[in-house]
Amino acid sequence: MAQTTPNHTQTVSGWAAHDTSGKITPYIFKRRENGVNDVTIEILYCGICHTDLHQVRNDWGITMYPIVPGHEITGLITKVGSNVKGFKVGDKVGVGCLAASCLDCEFCNSSQENYCDQVQFTYNGIFWDGSITYGGYSKMLVADHRYVVHIPENLAMDAAAPLLCAGITVFCPMKDNNLVGGAMGKKVGIVGLGGLGHVAVKFAKAFGHHVTVISTSPSKQNEAKARLGADDFIVSTDDQQMQQARRSLDFILDTVSANHSLGPILELLKVNGTLVFVGAPEKPIELPSFPLIFGKRVVKGSMIGGMRETQEMMDICGKHNITCDIEVIRPDNINEAMDRLVRNDVRYRFVIDIAGNSSN
Amino acid sequence: MAQTTPNHTQTVSGWAAHDTSGKITPYIFKRRENGVNDVTIEILYCGICHTDLHQVRNDWGITMYPIVPGHEITGLITKVGSNVKGFKVGDKVGVGCLAASCLDCEFCNSSQENYCDQVQFTYNGIFWDGSITYGGYSKMLVADHRYVVHIPENLAMDAAAPLLCAGITVFCPMKDNNLVGGAMGKKVGIVGLGGLGHVAVKFAKAFGHHVTVISTSPSKQNEAKARLGADDFIVSTDDQQMQQARRSLDFILDTVSANHSLGPILELLKVNGTLVFVGAPEKPIELPSFPLIFGKRVVKGSMIGGMRETQEMMDICGKHNITCDIEVIRPDNINEAMDRLVRNDVRYRFVIDIAGNSSN
Repeated sequence: MAQTTPNHTQTVSGWAAHDTSGKITPYIFKRRENGVNDVTIEILYCGICHTDLHQVRNDWGITMYPIVPGHEITGLITKVGSNVKGFKVGDKVGVGCLAASCLDCEFCNSSQENYCDQVQFTYNGIFWDGSITYGGYSKMLVADHRYVVHIPENLAMDAAAPLLCAGITVFCPMKDNNLVGGAMGKKVGIVGLGGLGHVAVKFAKAFGHHVTVISTSPSKQNEAKARLGADDFIVSTDDQQMQQARRSLDFILDTVSANHSLGPILELLKVNGTLVFVGAPEKPIELPSFPLIFGKRVVKGSMIGGMRETQEMMDICGKHNITCDIEVIRPDNINEAMDRLVRNDVRYRFVIDIAGNSSN
Repeated sequence: MAQTTPNHTQTVSGWAAHDTSGKITPYIFKRRENGVNDVTIEILYCGICHTDLHQVRNDWGITMYPIVPGHEITGLITKVGSNVKGFKVGDKVGVGCLAASCLDCEFCNSSQENYCDQVQFTYNGIFWDGSITYGGYSKMLVADHRYVVHIPENLAMDAAAPLLCAGITVFCPMKDNNLVGGAMGKKVGIVGLGGLGHVAVKFAKAFGHHVTVISTSPSKQNEAKARLGADDFIVSTDDQQMQQARRSLDFILDTVSANHSLGPILELLKVNGTLVFVGAPEKPIELPSFPLIFGKRVVKGSMIGGMRETQEMMDICGKHNITCDIEVIRPDNINEAMDRLVRNDVRYRFVIDIAGNSSN
């Protein structure tokens, strides 16, 4: 359990879930004083990630209530600690999933803090001082500056917010697999056209690849192609379409969190092709061995990204003017938005207008 | 179904299963005449592979009865076709899983015939002439010379036989992942100490790596270390041992065909570590997403090897004097051997003495 945290003196208004119903209600809590390495951020916007949904309901069995979700945070710096370099009051910044790591292991030293064995997350984590971390469904955040990135001037702060999780989650696998600034014209498949998938399509097109969206929803075809620029669309429940596309793709990014078998999707990969899985379904993924071994295929996992990669992604988004397609909501509509998220009734990400700046 | 094959004029004695009971009985059948690209082989020995067990019982739903199993074949050449180069009468040779491929695709052109889209196997396949292929549980084989390898003089023909499938199956993933003649001293885990696993331990030790055997059977510890030279042994059902070895291995080869979850095994890998799966369980493998994504881990499939790789493996086995640990049986004991194989009651491979040369 969280230790006593005497320096948590700042009162903050936020929104929290208190039990497995996942119902979100206003919640007043404390944050730490701004330390020497910290910046204080006035939160403007916070995206609603699928993870929030899992966590408020304790789907993964690890939730510490009350839980203040939110790890797709954009805002303005209002205070900087004495050791902080590179940030000043008024800066537009973003905070994603990371709140702390050991700062001393091979992963921290190579800015892969996300794979540090002692990584702690922006909410439902345990900070260095022993306190439970509270996320971005709140008016103000105190964050160690080593886990904060700059938001390019040309990006809208609301539409940029989901880049902090959805964006980096799909950017890293592309970078790791030489699809960013490396080979172009690769055949890239994106499974699922939701919060993650729609950004993945934008990235893959911006990086010069041939993009096929693979989805269970035929109704998304027009949007995938006309609005997001995908080249092809496959309905994954259509055996004939799946059969025709057999062994055609170099790389697949699977963004679907719902339980599904990887078998039919793996068949779309060429021999030696790679599928990166970024979802976190409660149940184990079904991985039939035949499409794996007969095609010498590769299934990789990937989880968000390190801080250097996150800033790199932000800068690239600035350069290509990439943001997320969002629906902005007011804080008192969070529960309704979460219900709609369960039904995938959003194109493509809800973003909470924390500061009340939008006209929604 | 198989076409009429008028040139199948040679009568051969063998052993076949005729229905899903999988019971093997003597069987007289026909093989093709020796064609211009063929060699005829007097079969001396044939290993009993787990695949044989699956196929005779139609576990995968693809068996064409009667089925003559066997794809771990060693023997002597008795005839060579007019186009055949590199083989002569009297040569000691081996035939593995491959009987035919298109010979014209990118995979055939790079001697990865095993991944050719039109690959056909040594038994239960359809050869170019439309006939069903019959395997090595028989006195004689006609094989296209492009799917035949030389057996080094110093290797025993009985103990070399399982190298044709078990050996190449575990060799290729090591070669692909730079463990053969590349970096040495890697931390290598071998899951399962059976027909495949025991050869994998021999290879990994010969290639200079630190080898940990991971098994459900504590009784195999002594043998793994004292006889096969493994450095460490982990009982996979012992949570404490598994926890202690967390994030310790660079590479894992999973040779277990029984249904099992990859989750606990993946936790043994370092971040970015690779597990290659070479089994073929009937049911999908359970792949929990958390150990996959939190450790950015990689799961690859691999299926036997190409012909160039198979010859390379044989030559390396000759150089290091590596063969399989076997129990030689007479053909009339095949059913008993298969029953014992189901119970994993063999150390580590049954080999049928087809020609009756052994004193068993």
